[in-house]
Amino acid sequence: MSLIIIGTVAFDAIETPFGKTDKIVGGAATYASLAASYFCNKVKIVGVVGDDFPQSDIDTFTEHGIDTEGLQVKKGEKSFFWSGKYHNDMNSRDTLVTELNVLESFDPIIPESYQDCEYLMLGNLTPIVQRTVIERLKKRPKLIVLDTMNFWMDIMMDDLLETIKLVDVLTINDAEARQLAGEYSLVKAAKKILAMGPKYLIIKKGEHGALLFNEDKIFSAPALPLAEVFDPTGAGDTFAGGFIGYLAKVGTISFNNMKNAIIFGSALASFCVEKFGTEKILNLTEEEVSARIKEFVSLSAFTIE
Amino acid sequence: MSLIIIGTVAFDAIETPFGKTDKIVGGAATYASLAASYFCNKVKIVGVVGDDFPQSDIDTFTEHGIDTEGLQVKKGEKSFFWSGKYHNDMNSRDTLVTELNVLESFDPIIPESYQDCEYLMLGNLTPIVQRTVIERLKKRPKLIVLDTMNFWMDIMMDDLLETIKLVDVLTINDAEARQLAGEYSLVKAAKKILAMGPKYLIIKKGEHGALLFNEDKIFSAPALPLAEVFDPTGAGDTFAGGFIGYLAKVGTISFNNMKNAIIFGSALASFCVEKFGTEKILNLTEEEVSARIKEFVSLSAFTIE
Repeated sequence: MSLIIIGTVAFDAIETPFGKTDKIVGGAATYASLAASYFCNKVKIVGVVGDDFPQSDIDTFTEHGIDTEGLQVKKGEKSFFWSGKYHNDMNSRDTLVTELNVLESFDPIIPESYQDCEYLMLGNLTPIVQRTVIERLKKRPKLIVLDTMNFWMDIMMDDLLETIKLVDVLTINDAEARQLAGEYSLVKAAKKILAMGPKYLIIKKGEHGALLFNEDKIFSAPALPLAEVFDPTGAGDTFAGGFIGYLAKVGTISFNNMKNAIIFGSALASFCVEKFGTEKILNLTEEEVSARIKEFVSLSAFTIE
Repeated sequence: MSLIIIGTVAFDAIETPFGKTDKIVGGAATYASLAASYFCNKVKIVGVVGDDFPQSDIDTFTEHGIDTEGLQVKKGEKSFFWSGKYHNDMNSRDTLVTELNVLESFDPIIPESYQDCEYLMLGNLTPIVQRTVIERLKKRPKLIVLDTMNFWMDIMMDDLLETIKLVDVLTINDAEARQLAGEYSLVKAAKKILAMGPKYLIIKKGEHGALLFNEDKIFSAPALPLAEVFDPTGAGDTFAGGFIGYLAKVGTISFNNMKNAIIFGSALASFCVEKFGTEKILNLTEEEVSARIKEFVSLSAFTIE
């Protein structure tokens, strides 16, 4: 089934304890669409770049079967640029540079060929742009997943709440869940957030895995313990892309399918952090992905009679 | 099979955001032996208290089938006392008072009737006293589990390393694993720690569950997401007691049994934090325990074909 992914397509410059990169391709929609492309062959991207964005990188999307008709290229403008430096624990980072550039006036265009979409991933962006995309789809998709971050809670909570109302699944991290709900307990926070509109809430806990909440049900997904996290950039977007890509492939929304989707998303994210940027998730084989899934299964399986 | 549990038997005064207690009964051996008593009917305690420790609280052990012959009562001396205040996140706390009292000169006595023991839990205590217990057992138990903390790493690392060499299972939290190994990555830390002697390492991550390492195998156990953590005191000791109590009941050491033991330990710990001190784990029914186990199963189960 077809899947629209909206989000940033950008340049990142990343510094970790293991090294640093020049400007490399990044952005929420980049990671999410690459991850989704492993499961779904009808991924359609919506985003904006400047004419500094190399055609060869747009071709990379195409080679992964990702439709770029909705990716606007703004003549004479520059792409969104973010630069950050991770601390030694790799769990926290400082933003060194944020240049919005084309993002400042981003008006998402939904090509006519995208209108049949059944799955929609709203990657991290201003909640107003995210809402605009929902409004511009003539038919509401079967499933809308929204990813956001503390930044929007700090500066435009009301707009964010308006957008959250409209979606089926919200993905945020534990600190963001606590901020959004004003509750320290994640169980209490989840209850409040589910009352804000979404039927499902995914709380991402990085190296501690993820929690899925739906009505009174909870699923706790493990994270793969890794000897080395090389670069965490894009892991959350890769998770979200793998998650919705898997669901679009399966085609049925259920708690059980959501659980599996979280495992597939986590598996893709566990690859993502092994190299800088998108490097590792550009060319995974089916065997690599299914071996990684098996690791997740054996990691958390136990049998009590 | 019989199980010796050594550790503190003490008074605690606890303050949490939910309230505060006067002096109540606490201590590593108290929590661990109560938890173990749900699975094993031959729990034997080794510890020391002053004559300020009420006979009624010693009777509580007996009522749970716990042998107290190895619990020394020192005339004219006072029991170990700890007082602490938890911060709002319940994950960190300040120690307000530590009075060692009887613990200062604690010389563990192993009664003759304990000498047949096959399972040994060394609760958190000075590593020298922990080692003394191993030395005083004429026959090495089938399984020795050691719990310790950062305090001993700070002030007597060499003694701790000597004791760790002698045990089968080490249980510590994630910060302690990082400190002990000098590695941030838990996978790398585990590898180093397993080279120090223990065949199994359990890394306790509180609200994020626990990891079990053995050779190249890893098991990730979930923690039950709780709406309210009322008082975390003793949760780690309860976990360890439930863990070894379950193994003593099953009687066979294997990675699979260890996985289940972690689930049983986690279930007991999830009860422990629901009330102040030992209150909640004093009178659990079999039905309550098995319903909680079912919650753990459904929390982490997924099926990928």
